Amino acid sequence: MSLTDVLSRIDTDLPAATDRLMDLLRIPSISTDPAFKSDCDRAADWLVSDLNSLGITTEKRATPGHPMVVGHLDGTGPHLLFYGHYDVQPVDPLNLWNLDPFDPDIQDTPAGKVIRGRGSSDDKGQLMTFVEACRAWKAVHGTLPCKLTFFLEGEEESGSPSLVPFMKEHADELTADIALICDTAMVSPGVPSIAGQLRGMLKDEFTIHGPTRDLHSGHYGGPGLNPLREISRIVASFHDTETGAVAVDGFYEGVPEVSDEMLRQWQNCGFDEAAYLGGVGYTQAHGEKAYSTLEQQWARPTLEINGLWGGYQGAGTKTVIPAEAHCKLTCRLVGDMDPDRLRTRIRAHVETRLSPDARVTWDGDLDGSPASVMNTDRPEFEAARQALSNEWNREAVIVGMGGSIPIAGFFKDILGLDSMLIGYANEDDAIHSPNEKYNLASFHKGIRSWARILDALTRA
Amino acid sequence: MSLTDVLSRIDTDLPAATDRLMDLLRIPSISTDPAFKSDCDRAADWLVSDLNSLGITTEKRATPGHPMVVGHLDGTGPHLLFYGHYDVQPVDPLNLWNLDPFDPDIQDTPAGKVIRGRGSSDDKGQLMTFVEACRAWKAVHGTLPCKLTFFLEGEEESGSPSLVPFMKEHADELTADIALICDTAMVSPGVPSIAGQLRGMLKDEFTIHGPTRDLHSGHYGGPGLNPLREISRIVASFHDTETGAVAVDGFYEGVPEVSDEMLRQWQNCGFDEAAYLGGVGYTQAHGEKAYSTLEQQWARPTLEINGLWGGYQGAGTKTVIPAEAHCKLTCRLVGDMDPDRLRTRIRAHVETRLSPDARVTWDGDLDGSPASVMNTDRPEFEAARQALSNEWNREAVIVGMGGSIPIAGFFKDILGLDSMLIGYANEDDAIHSPNEKYNLASFHKGIRSWARILDALTRA
Repeated sequence: MSLTDVLSRIDTDLPAATDRLMDLLRIPSISTDPAFKSDCDRAADWLVSDLNSLGITTEKRATPGHPMVVGHLDGTGPHLLFYGHYDVQPVDPLNLWNLDPFDPDIQDTPAGKVIRGRGSSDDKGQLMTFVEACRAWKAVHGTLPCKLTFFLEGEEESGSPSLVPFMKEHADELTADIALICDTAMVSPGVPSIAGQLRGMLKDEFTIHGPTRDLHSGHYGGPGLNPLREISRIVASFHDTETGAVAVDGFYEGVPEVSDEMLRQWQNCGFDEAAYLGGVGYTQAHGEKAYSTLEQQWARPTLEINGLWGGYQGAGTKTVIPAEAHCKLTCRLVGDMDPDRLRTRIRAHVETRLSPDARVTWDGDLDGSPASVMNTDRPEFEAARQALSNEWNREAVIVGMGGSIPIAGFFKDILGLDSMLIGYANEDDAIHSPNEKYNLASFHKGIRSWARILDALTRA
Repeated sequence: MSLTDVLSRIDTDLPAATDRLMDLLRIPSISTDPAFKSDCDRAADWLVSDLNSLGITTEKRATPGHPMVVGHLDGTGPHLLFYGHYDVQPVDPLNLWNLDPFDPDIQDTPAGKVIRGRGSSDDKGQLMTFVEACRAWKAVHGTLPCKLTFFLEGEEESGSPSLVPFMKEHADELTADIALICDTAMVSPGVPSIAGQLRGMLKDEFTIHGPTRDLHSGHYGGPGLNPLREISRIVASFHDTETGAVAVDGFYEGVPEVSDEMLRQWQNCGFDEAAYLGGVGYTQAHGEKAYSTLEQQWARPTLEINGLWGGYQGAGTKTVIPAEAHCKLTCRLVGDMDPDRLRTRIRAHVETRLSPDARVTWDGDLDGSPASVMNTDRPEFEAARQALSNEWNREAVIVGMGGSIPIAGFFKDILGLDSMLIGYANEDDAIHSPNEKYNLASFHKGIRSWARILDALTRA
């Protein structure tokens, strides 16, 4: 029996594999909202049961937050650790979805069939590509070709507060030769991609307080300090409109320039700038003017406003000067940028710009993750690149990534473990947005890709 | 029988008068929110019934919005028209109230007893001072000393869309010698005040559109245009931070300087700047630096942000670049400022500052009202000033007002009718805010004040 048999099995089993994914997608495991705590628990149970059915000894492990799912399969060959996450983003604004986000469906689109629903791409669909590859391999060979550890978390979309403590406590159990992570996108449709570097992340949240209570804008309009004006002025001061750069003092400390060699690789990686920008309504890039679109996305840090609110939002008018205004922000970090030092600088930027009678309170998650650079010289990268190139009939590329997947940094720092991030998502998957989808082709060829990679790594 | 008998009757009837007001306060007549349409209707019915019980022939009159309440009493003496409004502001944020806003109560405070609940001051409590004065007068004298028209609306807190059409259609029915309006505050606690001028109002609302859908801030952070940053920059550009002035081109066209004589009167009107600012947590005024606090409030125009929102507002983090950001604004106008011309200028200010790939849509109420200056030379003003001075043992003053009560301008323009605005609210009544209250003393002495004013006007 051969890899060909495994690939055939994957092809014939695709309808059943899709049904299994649908089951998992129906569980609304939104980790950031305490209202969905029991749903996160149900998603973990579902995975425990599914992995055990493959002969992988799997348990749910309690944490102060949502549980970890940890599974082990002893065997010969290399020891691979697979990481994914079973939690999903919130679904608002709900009115923009074309179906119930937790009642997924297969929909026809001009670009082919898609699996539509929250988590279909990020990350339930992606993580199930690896599980289904294992299932097909087991069905054909009766066993798997390697020693395997599964490590699935339920807090990735809410800052992974339990992850580092759990890894430190269970470091012995989580050793392996290399970690495989399926939570990334392809650089362009049909171009298989392995992440060479990932941006880090810093989150913070603040409230500007003005008057001691909401005021009438007739009685206090003029003399009254308005927190909405105050927060607008401060948010506007975060960027230099001329250069597009972040204007927080010291923000770019630790940011490396990309080497000419890396830039040349990126220029040839199949990134379709017009599709990337035009697909969401942009005619141009809006970041730092001194850098290309790809550098802005992969190699430059950002300070982004994710939420801003205060005052009256209902129908009609309310002539109010509100007592408070709120802002949620995240930064993407590169190179050696230090999240803790940067947080101090951002807070100082705000505090030194406050008007008299305004004050700020901070409510940020104090965790931050630095950027990650992968050890792409390891032989597994070339083996996986060949396997992916064979499946997609297109040379696989090693690319930068704009997103933040701090797990790779934690694997390295805590367990001394290198990571290889391979994913089959597309930029238009609308992850974190209404109408999230995963191309049925991503799911199908993703499963086949992992089967080829398992084959390549165990032969290497 | 004399005025003294009427005042005594008011004193003994105060508990019953308070109970009647409580009944009216229990009706949640929020005009701006369509969910409360039937409640607005119920408040109108309540007033129709109450006025008819006083022998005033009163009807509810349909409009495209909430109904008008119109009542007539024939008689000898001057013909007075009384205007008030039975609708109230929304109640959010609900968690800051110390009681159900529509289950009013009498509460003890360090400053004395207060009637607490939405509308207790603005304007149900105030309008009932006049109704109760009429009731006491009728009880003592069997009739009223003048010809009376009641004209009560239910859309004052939502821009009064039906008011002007209704006045034009029923101009004959709404003629009188002078209009009395009870919807204003005293300049300082215990200082009876008549409005000499009122600011006008302009409302507008806009949405900044960026990408065609919500984006992931990892995949698009950097190259992606963020509507929250865009709206912050535009809102910040509305004001000059050095001078505190509005920076919209041509904004101050038609703004007069206040005469030295008027300024002298205002300086002696009992306005307590430290209490006005300190009572809401300010140590200084935050408007135009070239003008005093009182001028900023009464005689200078404003552009104020009443609501600002976009992106994720829930618990935790969502790494989103939202597709849209929203802003609600109002301007207070003085002198000869033209609302329509100003709206065009504000919209141009926004449109010329948009980044490429951003666009704006407008959703503003297109009505605006210019500022009003009262005809304080009429003898009724001096008669009322004397009556108020007698009741409050403090010389009554003619003051400016920061709020906007466009009805006075409409009475003048449509009916040729001068208005006299007298109210008993206090700056700390928290109108439009949580925990709105009306001092029981305002209610009691307000009723007595109107009885004295009725007496003075009918003798004059």
